[in-house]
Amino acid sequence: MIVEKYGGTSVADVDKIKAIAKHVADIKKRGHDIIVVASAMGKTTNKLIALAKEVGYATNDRELDSLLSTGEQQTVTLLAMAIEAQGVPAISLTGYQAGFITSNHHAHAHIKDIDITNIQKHLDDGKVVVVAGFQGATENGEITTLGRGGSDTTAVALAAKLGWNCYIYTDVDGVYTIDPRIYPQAKLLPEITYNEMMQMACLGSGVLETRCVEIASKYNLQLFLGRALETDLTKGTFIMEYKHIEDMPITGISVKDDYAIMRVRNIDNDGVFIGRLFQLIADLNVNIDTISQQEGEAGKVNFTFYCNSTQSDLIVNNYDEKEYGYPIERILGFCKISVVGVGISTHSGIASTILNTLTKNNIRYYQITSSEISVSLTIERHDKEKAVAVLAKAFDL
Amino acid sequence: MIVEKYGGTSVADVDKIKAIAKHVADIKKRGHDIIVVASAMGKTTNKLIALAKEVGYATNDRELDSLLSTGEQQTVTLLAMAIEAQGVPAISLTGYQAGFITSNHHAHAHIKDIDITNIQKHLDDGKVVVVAGFQGATENGEITTLGRGGSDTTAVALAAKLGWNCYIYTDVDGVYTIDPRIYPQAKLLPEITYNEMMQMACLGSGVLETRCVEIASKYNLQLFLGRALETDLTKGTFIMEYKHIEDMPITGISVKDDYAIMRVRNIDNDGVFIGRLFQLIADLNVNIDTISQQEGEAGKVNFTFYCNSTQSDLIVNNYDEKEYGYPIERILGFCKISVVGVGISTHSGIASTILNTLTKNNIRYYQITSSEISVSLTIERHDKEKAVAVLAKAFDL
Repeated sequence: MIVEKYGGTSVADVDKIKAIAKHVADIKKRGHDIIVVASAMGKTTNKLIALAKEVGYATNDRELDSLLSTGEQQTVTLLAMAIEAQGVPAISLTGYQAGFITSNHHAHAHIKDIDITNIQKHLDDGKVVVVAGFQGATENGEITTLGRGGSDTTAVALAAKLGWNCYIYTDVDGVYTIDPRIYPQAKLLPEITYNEMMQMACLGSGVLETRCVEIASKYNLQLFLGRALETDLTKGTFIMEYKHIEDMPITGISVKDDYAIMRVRNIDNDGVFIGRLFQLIADLNVNIDTISQQEGEAGKVNFTFYCNSTQSDLIVNNYDEKEYGYPIERILGFCKISVVGVGISTHSGIASTILNTLTKNNIRYYQITSSEISVSLTIERHDKEKAVAVLAKAFDL
Repeated sequence: MIVEKYGGTSVADVDKIKAIAKHVADIKKRGHDIIVVASAMGKTTNKLIALAKEVGYATNDRELDSLLSTGEQQTVTLLAMAIEAQGVPAISLTGYQAGFITSNHHAHAHIKDIDITNIQKHLDDGKVVVVAGFQGATENGEITTLGRGGSDTTAVALAAKLGWNCYIYTDVDGVYTIDPRIYPQAKLLPEITYNEMMQMACLGSGVLETRCVEIASKYNLQLFLGRALETDLTKGTFIMEYKHIEDMPITGISVKDDYAIMRVRNIDNDGVFIGRLFQLIADLNVNIDTISQQEGEAGKVNFTFYCNSTQSDLIVNNYDEKEYGYPIERILGFCKISVVGVGISTHSGIASTILNTLTKNNIRYYQITSSEISVSLTIERHDKEKAVAVLAKAFDL
């Protein structure tokens, strides 16, 4: 009994939909119960957003949700038809029909519950159930979408509710030790723990949203991530609670690009300015990290944090020096490299290996932060590829 | 308080949607309550049907309905956004959200009831309500479509439920005495009765489905048919119970193209063969008309009927001469011309004017049928334009 999820690139055209339909029908013919979750075809969502902007869409997320939900609805009906053409009964369900009851936070709703009555009925009737990803409805029947990673969340939440395993098919082979676009020699990981995957996701590896891994972890659900219709069964990554192979202390390196350092010097150490600055940052909905405070001149302090370059524009444009009393400095051109692995807390010397490796290769690092399973460093952007390469070699990634 | 309906060509692109939004917002700003019903943009429905066929759609109308319903859902969300961009609050509703409860006859569902609670709430909140045409849902939340003329039916049914007037905007100026593609000198009718309109619709004038006119007639609802965003207010046709102008006995001529004569000669007059033939015709879902029986040789009878050429193929391909005992003849190349007008029953000499006019112009006619408000004749197809022209002249159409 499995839930399979296919992303937009996997269902981008009729031939791909037919190939997936054949694969799904074969699984069903072998006697398995199967639920398929699908995203909108190819670039449909982006096209719909562009149309919305053209007609003057400003802030009405209620309408945008209803518009975008049509993308997945189209895919699942086509996929159900294609599965039936393979001689296997199938039915498509919108998020609403599939029982996804969500909060009313349009554009980023969260799932409150899944009423599986309808899905269960169709499974009992021997049908393949094809569920529109990314969407649900409030108790009042208002259509909502789940925001980033939405279709993955649909699949994982459904698998959790049913206690089934979940296979997420996409246009990558699985989780790599390092993003192959940065480091082509990176290795495909056969296994990764939930915690490592969450760290990798948080720290910039875009293959799976943290939210999905959280749900999988909470329900101890086996997740698989691989390429759609891959025939080489040794490919792909299982995401689970414990790895079978424990001899590798480091699982991977993740890179978050485009960092800016923001700094305010010599402020009074009474918390007043910091409180006001944090309020501004919260109002602007900017995510900052690696916050630190150092001693400045004459009992004053220097305050530093990092954020994404684009978001730093928001701060610079909304920070009024006269109002706050101190000038704010911004230095662009950084990135953050994180070494991730469950072995970090149990294997000694990981941090020193990282720092020694960088120093030996003349790579300057700035802030360092660490958690139980990760060590992160801010470095200059032009050092990115070199740093990744030397660390990958040091940890055999 | 008005219901306006815009067809697919009227909302075919972003500029048209914006222009309609401005028009609708202006009406709302002048203090009127308004509900807008919209079809899918341009050729969206045909494109979706083509996609369905490509993935192998055969007979699953349940899936096709869910697929096609996305077309109208996209239009209404975009239109609601565009109206809001004009500074007027608006909300889009799918057929389901608008309370359209239908039978479960997918692809040609009929409306069982409209629960207007949700629509009324949004109207009370001062919003323009934009309703997806052509669609509804069963009591179980299964998405259905209303079949031919579906969006017009949505608008008219809603107007009937609310007791409002209904304006149907399309890509024609209104109802003409004769289809202008056949007879360019045809006149635009300012008024037409429900009965005349139903005859015109039945007899081949494609501007409005009979079903819509039936509902309008039942609820004595004033229907208007005109071109979207037409600024000349003298244009367009009102469809109502009685015309204000009664001096014109004939309202128009409608033409049904592509007729075939089907004939079986010298059959036993015991009803057995006719019963079996009618069963075949019903099984094939073929619409036939102008059925007649004449005396044949030696106490036998000849049986004749007309049907659409394409549908006649179905009969020819499924009629097994050995099984039925008689050969069936088919003669292609006919069309049916109908002269329509409420004055036919009260003005004498209409039929003789028609027949004399045709005879004088050497146009041969075959079957003749008539009703209270129409006289129909089968003629050879090559005589079509000539017959229309001489009859139009005879009745000053």
